[in-house]
Amino acid sequence: MRADDLLGRIRQTITAHRLWSPGARIVVAVSGGLDSVALLHVLITLRADWKLTLHLAHLDHGLRDVSAQDAEFVRGLGVRWRIPTTIERRDVGAICAQEGWSLEDGARRIRYQFLLETAHRQRANRIALGHTADDQAETVLMRLVRGTGLLGLSAMPMTRALDRDVCIVRPLLEVWRRDLAAMVKRERVAYREDATNSDPRFVRNRIRHELLPLLEEHYNPNVKSALTQLAEQSRSDYAYLEQAAGRQWKRMVKVLRSSRPSGAAPHGQAPPPNSLVEGQVVVISLKAFRRQPKALQRQLIRQAIRRVRGDLGRLEFRHWLEVERLVGERPVGTVLDLPGGVQVRRDQDHLICQQTPP
Amino acid sequence: MRADDLLGRIRQTITAHRLWSPGARIVVAVSGGLDSVALLHVLITLRADWKLTLHLAHLDHGLRDVSAQDAEFVRGLGVRWRIPTTIERRDVGAICAQEGWSLEDGARRIRYQFLLETAHRQRANRIALGHTADDQAETVLMRLVRGTGLLGLSAMPMTRALDRDVCIVRPLLEVWRRDLAAMVKRERVAYREDATNSDPRFVRNRIRHELLPLLEEHYNPNVKSALTQLAEQSRSDYAYLEQAAGRQWKRMVKVLRSSRPSGAAPHGQAPPPNSLVEGQVVVISLKAFRRQPKALQRQLIRQAIRRVRGDLGRLEFRHWLEVERLVGERPVGTVLDLPGGVQVRRDQDHLICQQTPP
Repeated sequence: MRADDLLGRIRQTITAHRLWSPGARIVVAVSGGLDSVALLHVLITLRADWKLTLHLAHLDHGLRDVSAQDAEFVRGLGVRWRIPTTIERRDVGAICAQEGWSLEDGARRIRYQFLLETAHRQRANRIALGHTADDQAETVLMRLVRGTGLLGLSAMPMTRALDRDVCIVRPLLEVWRRDLAAMVKRERVAYREDATNSDPRFVRNRIRHELLPLLEEHYNPNVKSALTQLAEQSRSDYAYLEQAAGRQWKRMVKVLRSSRPSGAAPHGQAPPPNSLVEGQVVVISLKAFRRQPKALQRQLIRQAIRRVRGDLGRLEFRHWLEVERLVGERPVGTVLDLPGGVQVRRDQDHLICQQTPP
Repeated sequence: MRADDLLGRIRQTITAHRLWSPGARIVVAVSGGLDSVALLHVLITLRADWKLTLHLAHLDHGLRDVSAQDAEFVRGLGVRWRIPTTIERRDVGAICAQEGWSLEDGARRIRYQFLLETAHRQRANRIALGHTADDQAETVLMRLVRGTGLLGLSAMPMTRALDRDVCIVRPLLEVWRRDLAAMVKRERVAYREDATNSDPRFVRNRIRHELLPLLEEHYNPNVKSALTQLAEQSRSDYAYLEQAAGRQWKRMVKVLRSSRPSGAAPHGQAPPPNSLVEGQVVVISLKAFRRQPKALQRQLIRQAIRRVRGDLGRLEFRHWLEVERLVGERPVGTVLDLPGGVQVRRDQDHLICQQTPP
């Protein structure tokens, strides 16, 4: 892809998805690797057109020997391009151990929290991430292999609000890594190789370096496009289901305040995206619920869980089957424990969702 | 899985999905391979409980050297179990060449047509097919790799009406092949090895023998369950979208009769499942269409195509993007050709879908 075509494609993404308005203040998340350096390069090129104010942000996870060098590299980028830069070091390993998070999940939470804090300090309204169409295809495939539904297939959104003021945007989500690599090479932009990207202990790396190449070679040379298109289609289908369930929600659900104290957000955790007040009890009319088609029933249960625990957690298909049995055949008074400390109880005429008592 | 558990699971499928009522007359499609012989064995075992009348049907595709021996084997099963049997030979290769069908697709059409004719002759109301949960997982994975959306992910339905009288049913769709193989071995039921099942030129065989084992070993031992659950969830989500689009259809679509003669169904082709009168023109109000969410817009276009050509054909994601552009930015009068001989024209206030003029 030619340089102009690549930039044109990214401009199209920015416009079509309204990633920002002129004058936006953007925190650019830069690890120092190819994708994020390409992102920075693109944003610098487009800066004048949208009158952007840029700010670099880099979190030193303290997980690898070279992480201090990565941080220095990013500091150098800031100096070279005269872009104000925030670099912080957080002991991700220690925080994850303390909170009981997996390293992969915990690192993500801590990174988002750092980026959000940086955005607040800089009065920025956008955080730009360097995810590419390849990342999207990998995400879809990873979820397919692990087990997923329409929500999981939607993969990464183009934009996502972190709070009222700050929105994540992914301007590179519709371009391929190979085109970014060509641009970076052509324009002699320096970047750092990220050794974790080739570590086969991470599933994503095996998906990237083994499974996708195998599928491309032996099954479909365009499999990555097939996966990103599936994500796009799933996103709009899911959005419609969510909206339709929202209309039913108003008709059959009551939300009460729980007498239990709501748990404070754990240390270093980003506020959940669709965060609602915690410590609530959701009461669903069974009679009305039973009249809904399965797709909406599932959606209503999802919404109830999110209301109770602040985020969706990992609702698997088997949990959904258990909810179906609870509604269909279990005796009154049966209690079902869902992951993430949510409990669903069935009484005569209602499903009652609330936090599991400690 | 123990024999009783396996039969219990199949009984549960039959009841939960209402595959048939007592007294049903069932044409059992038997190729002679493991799955279909296991199906026959199961139906013979359950025959008394539902007072079933069984009829064996076998189509000799004339594609393989051993196909006459397969036919003889099935004839022997009919004699042994005293079940009336229809065996026919059709020159699938010649018909496909004549009609321009691929061998895989054509063989399926011709087989379904044969089964439907047999059902009519026997005044049967069900055709039982031996597809297993493994076939379902393979179908989902094959479509994912080729490129698909919610409809494709729904894979094979448990039941499908072929016409007003006859319905396809898949009683084995929730059990695994390995459990059927164990049953067949335990009860010393003879079956024929199907050489085409190991031919790596067929994508399905490579999915079965190479890709799925690799995913099970290196990524997720339960990947097949993940895929069948995705199919089940997609089916209910898709059903809801279809229903919602149906409500909008009534409000914004007019169906006119075309002055063009409608083409007769090609030789040997089964009537399409959701068959509607051919030779129709579908007129969609653009103003109302534009107000719909993307998920419903896509669904409405699907419905229009089915109305015009009798079945859905292969509407790919890129076709959908072209429709989006037609609605959004193309000038009045633009004509878009969709696969399968359907044309969508845009006038000032409408989208007009009809058969492409010859």
